[in-house]
Amino acid sequence: MNTNTTMQAAVLHRAGDFRMEWVPRKEPANGEVEIRLLCNGICGSDVHFYREGRLGPFVVDRPYIPGHECSGIVSSVGSGVTTVREGDRVVAEPGIPCRHCHHCLSGRYNLCTEVRFLSAPPIDGTLAEYVVVPDLWAHPFPDSLEAEVAALAEPFAVGLHAIRRGGVQLGQKVAIVGVGPIGLVTLLCALAAGAGPIIVIDTVPARLDLALRLGAAVGINAREADPVAVVHQVTNGHGADVVLETAGNSGAAALTIEVAGRGSTVVQVGWPEAANISYPLEMVIDKELMVVGSNRYAGTFPAALELLASGKVDAKQLISHRYPFSKTPEAFAMVAANPQTVIKTLILHS
Amino acid sequence: MNTNTTMQAAVLHRAGDFRMEWVPRKEPANGEVEIRLLCNGICGSDVHFYREGRLGPFVVDRPYIPGHECSGIVSSVGSGVTTVREGDRVVAEPGIPCRHCHHCLSGRYNLCTEVRFLSAPPIDGTLAEYVVVPDLWAHPFPDSLEAEVAALAEPFAVGLHAIRRGGVQLGQKVAIVGVGPIGLVTLLCALAAGAGPIIVIDTVPARLDLALRLGAAVGINAREADPVAVVHQVTNGHGADVVLETAGNSGAAALTIEVAGRGSTVVQVGWPEAANISYPLEMVIDKELMVVGSNRYAGTFPAALELLASGKVDAKQLISHRYPFSKTPEAFAMVAANPQTVIKTLILHS
Amino acid sequence: MNTNTTMQAAVLHRAGDFRMEWVPRKEPANGEVEIRLLCNGICGSDVHFYREGRLGPFVVDRPYIPGHECSGIVSSVGSGVTTVREGDRVVAEPGIPCRHCHHCLSGRYNLCTEVRFLSAPPIDGTLAEYVVVPDLWAHPFPDSLEAEVAALAEPFAVGLHAIRRGGVQLGQKVAIVGVGPIGLVTLLCALAAGAGPIIVIDTVPARLDLALRLGAAVGINAREADPVAVVHQVTNGHGADVVLETAGNSGAAALTIEVAGRGSTVVQVGWPEAANISYPLEMVIDKELMVVGSNRYAGTFPAALELLASGKVDAKQLISHRYPFSKTPEAFAMVAANPQTVIKTLILHS
Amino acid sequence: MNTNTTMQAAVLHRAGDFRMEWVPRKEPANGEVEIRLLCNGICGSDVHFYREGRLGPFVVDRPYIPGHECSGIVSSVGSGVTTVREGDRVVAEPGIPCRHCHHCLSGRYNLCTEVRFLSAPPIDGTLAEYVVVPDLWAHPFPDSLEAEVAALAEPFAVGLHAIRRGGVQLGQKVAIVGVGPIGLVTLLCALAAGAGPIIVIDTVPARLDLALRLGAAVGINAREADPVAVVHQVTNGHGADVVLETAGNSGAAALTIEVAGRGSTVVQVGWPEAANISYPLEMVIDKELMVVGSNRYAGTFPAALELLASGKVDAKQLISHRYPFSKTPEAFAMVAANPQTVIKTLILHS
Repeated sequence: MNTNTTMQAAVLHRAGDFRMEWVPRKEPANGEVEIRLLCNGICGSDVHFYREGRLGPFVVDRPYIPGHECSGIVSSVGSGVTTVREGDRVVAEPGIPCRHCHHCLSGRYNLCTEVRFLSAPPIDGTLAEYVVVPDLWAHPFPDSLEAEVAALAEPFAVGLHAIRRGGVQLGQKVAIVGVGPIGLVTLLCALAAGAGPIIVIDTVPARLDLALRLGAAVGINAREADPVAVVHQVTNGHGADVVLETAGNSGAAALTIEVAGRGSTVVQVGWPEAANISYPLEMVIDKELMVVGSNRYAGTFPAALELLASGKVDAKQLISHRYPFSKTPEAFAMVAANPQTVIKTLILHS
Repeated sequence: MNTNTTMQAAVLHRAGDFRMEWVPRKEPANGEVEIRLLCNGICGSDVHFYREGRLGPFVVDRPYIPGHECSGIVSSVGSGVTTVREGDRVVAEPGIPCRHCHHCLSGRYNLCTEVRFLSAPPIDGTLAEYVVVPDLWAHPFPDSLEAEVAALAEPFAVGLHAIRRGGVQLGQKVAIVGVGPIGLVTLLCALAAGAGPIIVIDTVPARLDLALRLGAAVGINAREADPVAVVHQVTNGHGADVVLETAGNSGAAALTIEVAGRGSTVVQVGWPEAANISYPLEMVIDKELMVVGSNRYAGTFPAALELLASGKVDAKQLISHRYPFSKTPEAFAMVAANPQTVIKTLILHS
Repeated sequence: MNTNTTMQAAVLHRAGDFRMEWVPRKEPANGEVEIRLLCNGICGSDVHFYREGRLGPFVVDRPYIPGHECSGIVSSVGSGVTTVREGDRVVAEPGIPCRHCHHCLSGRYNLCTEVRFLSAPPIDGTLAEYVVVPDLWAHPFPDSLEAEVAALAEPFAVGLHAIRRGGVQLGQKVAIVGVGPIGLVTLLCALAAGAGPIIVIDTVPARLDLALRLGAAVGINAREADPVAVVHQVTNGHGADVVLETAGNSGAAALTIEVAGRGSTVVQVGWPEAANISYPLEMVIDKELMVVGSNRYAGTFPAALELLASGKVDAKQLISHRYPFSKTPEAFAMVAANPQTVIKTLILHS
Repeated sequence: MNTNTTMQAAVLHRAGDFRMEWVPRKEPANGEVEIRLLCNGICGSDVHFYREGRLGPFVVDRPYIPGHECSGIVSSVGSGVTTVREGDRVVAEPGIPCRHCHHCLSGRYNLCTEVRFLSAPPIDGTLAEYVVVPDLWAHPFPDSLEAEVAALAEPFAVGLHAIRRGGVQLGQKVAIVGVGPIGLVTLLCALAAGAGPIIVIDTVPARLDLALRLGAAVGINAREADPVAVVHQVTNGHGADVVLETAGNSGAAALTIEVAGRGSTVVQVGWPEAANISYPLEMVIDKELMVVGSNRYAGTFPAALELLASGKVDAKQLISHRYPFSKTPEAFAMVAANPQTVIKTLILHS
């Protein structure tokens, strides 16, 4: 049993009102584990809540704790837990499904409509001293993996799931539209899978530069060149074998269809700005494309942690900023003020 | 060698100007076969050219022969032909690809950009006494299959390809949006594959009635009921496992996404009315759908003919009208005047 | 809480020693349901234990209750059960996995090495007045489905899983080697999926006759004709598109490879008589076959029950004998004495 | 038209009787190209014919030219050739299918029963000054790729096809049984696809050493350690996700099944020493494996050449010996005498 009943947490009260506070500390129940956090990454969705107080159907209507990209150490386990032990270093998978519906039973638990997602308000996230999750959602990682790299498992799970949905293979010509943090992890995953050449498309020079340093073959600034023409040229007129959209806007979504080769696959990862967008569906038929949605991940964390531990991806290059836990509000303010140059900001717990 | 050098053909000069005429009869070259036509079905695309003189990128800018749903008998073979013999009853597959590009070599020849499609102006089709095609594009059918049913092989190839693209399986709950001729053949194919219950959605009562007679479990008139609510109810809240769109309009395309179950597959067969349409792409991500285009067929004719010969589908119920070849212009005028009540009109050669 | 603490059960003490006895009745724990049995089918594995006291690694070394093909009615539910209610008619899925290993989490729970299988000694099965299972393993079925047909859900789940593993599709030419009970349900499933022609191969005339009545196109008595030659002829020299082995002997396993078409799929359902058998692996390479094992089922019961309720399969024809529950030992004696003519014997609870 | 009507070739008259001779030089017909050879690799099958005069169904019953791993330069083109031009550097794909059967039309032309394979007696191979092939079977490669590396395209096509058949993916734990030349190229392909850790199993220390240098994580000498135990340990008890057999013997084939994880895929590439072998088929069912044959390649040469040109694989390390064309018989004698230490011997044309 924990001797302390409170803990420090970063609490978002409403848009822009972010405070370090003492909050109640939960006990792990039967089948649950408590994790003492070592590191947290700041996700774009966290920043949306910070800046606008809402994202999609989720609204900050009471104080809650953001954060869902984390690594930590098991500090306490409830009864009946056999998968991990106190002292194990683990990453918490933040989307906790019902485990009873047919999606859960078939392994596609990301489709579960009862999923509780840590940091989707009003459900508290991981920007605290401790977090409690069911045992199966605490994924151990080896000593060889640094805690701050392990905290990237969540975005890498998104990237891995995306390339799996797209069936990205050795030697395929891939285009990635949007190279913010998710586009960059997707790039690293696709490179690790032997895809190439990989063409990245964005409008922010700094991101394109980083993508090229990470291994992209060609970077296209969509403000300066015609992506369709360049992809056409690089692929000898065939178009890309797989296109992944991580930009989350309607123009980018339409562009994926244009740069896709006949018979190819398009993976839509980014959520466009509106429920309905203008979309070249006719071309989907003509080229006989397969357009697949990619929604978070399912069963992907172990593979993401193995990938990070394997050294096949240089994830550290994505870490652009580091802040101590006590400065979490300051970190959010910085990220919100620099949407284009910040890649991944980490919060380090002492 | 043919002794006659001319033949009768139905020649479309321009929109609305359709005439029976004598035209040159071609000799089959090396590797080609000549087919004497027995039967032709009238396709919606033929009627588009008849009524409007154009369809998509194709324009009737000189006289040409429509028709591409046919059955016939091999009347003459060029040198080097081994797959069929004079006297064989065959169906001509109308899309003739290059056989050299990587799409052709990989078996997905419907993606070939050099395909010559019989009846796509200015290329002549099959509404004539004879047509010449490469040997591999003349598919034999057995004596047990009537020539007028065999002439339906082309639309059935479209339907079969669509259910293959959608991976339609035994016991799956299927929704078909649009039950014109292509929707109805798709319905028959899905039923033959053991899918069910199958829900059909249209706005024309006569089509819905026929679909129900053919085996659909539920018909929804989208003018009278909310398809989303009905599909929800029929599928116990899950949505359809596979949705196929054959209506070819943007509203129907958007509806497919709404009636699709989480994690399901949507097959887009019909071409929408505009290159860009309003589309609920966000829901494709949220439900993690797979949206696949279905463009004609590839390697599907033998299976379509076997299906028709097997008696597993009652294709004859689709034949609503029959005309003699000499009355081809009258048949087109009738079809053009009755877009909703005509299902499939056949032209019978004497 | 149950008022009676004992129940009648059919208890197998050792090979040949089968008795109706009073045994303790269990209470459903948290998340469990108690089912009052309505009907039980006798499986070949039950008969193996009855006749030989063992099967594979499982040995009857203490008294236990056989039976795992059942239907019943929920008689009591433990706390926290939301999926079914008292009075619901349900089928118990007999293989209960751990729900924690990566096989379970990915949906392939039939690969779980911790699975508890009802009726695999020493675990009690369903030939009793009551059985208790976790809620997710009690699958409801509709009023329109007779309890004695619902009791066939377990073998149909085996057949459905087999055709799914083989990817059996509309119009495929299928060969089934062995048409005992599992071969026959596989035949019915393949027919319902639109496969055909279906060729069945066995050495027992009565089974072949029944298979032909159920819809097989061709029956081959392997004692009287050469299966390879007949399959070759029926398939125009191509061989079968999918071959399913349910006979469970090495000769049949080798035969599957010989009758398989180039590039086709072979599903091995039956367990051969020895751990190692003589096998034509060279031909697997030459023909580039895909040989897949099919081990029970995973996530298949709902589909099996829907299939039985749909009327697409005439499962009743498989029921060859019926006995009252009190005569269970006599039923086993009869089945054991008539291995070739008995198809499916049902035990009816009053 | 060629001015010379004869050319030098390496002609195998019978087992052990190998001579450099003048033979007729063929003209490229319509649709064919003539290639002047730059480099040839010696394949194990060539050595079989050299040593034993036969391999499988193929017998050296008249003089013929071995060799089918080659690179060259287009020296002359027949009429109608548009895919390559005189002076292009190309690799000849040696298996030339009929292009008319349903296997060819569906893209799986390696299953064509009419395939003509260059160097399968009595069909001449590429160990000559010139060879003539249909245009589609002359695959261009870029200037950046050395001719001697390009000559490895054929074995790399075998390896690529094998990993595609096995669905080898990023992060999968792979075991390769047999690391002769085909095992080594398969290793390089699997590494390039991001698989790992990769465990290699063989009995020849030199091969295991090379495999480890090329990137295998663990090498098991099956004479010294128990492969099942080691694979179990390396994979945390799960077994391998994909196992590839390239050793071509029955013991290795059985071993693949033992080291395979539950639910995994086994690719059989090597041809065992007998048509029927002792095989643990029961375990294929229990583990629910997928055992796939891998027979040469289909549509794989362009990808193999791109892979070699990409620099993702260090193919040069496989080249153990080089001989001038005039010394071809001596090269064969050396290879035949050193079956374990020779990896890939190249014949260099001046």
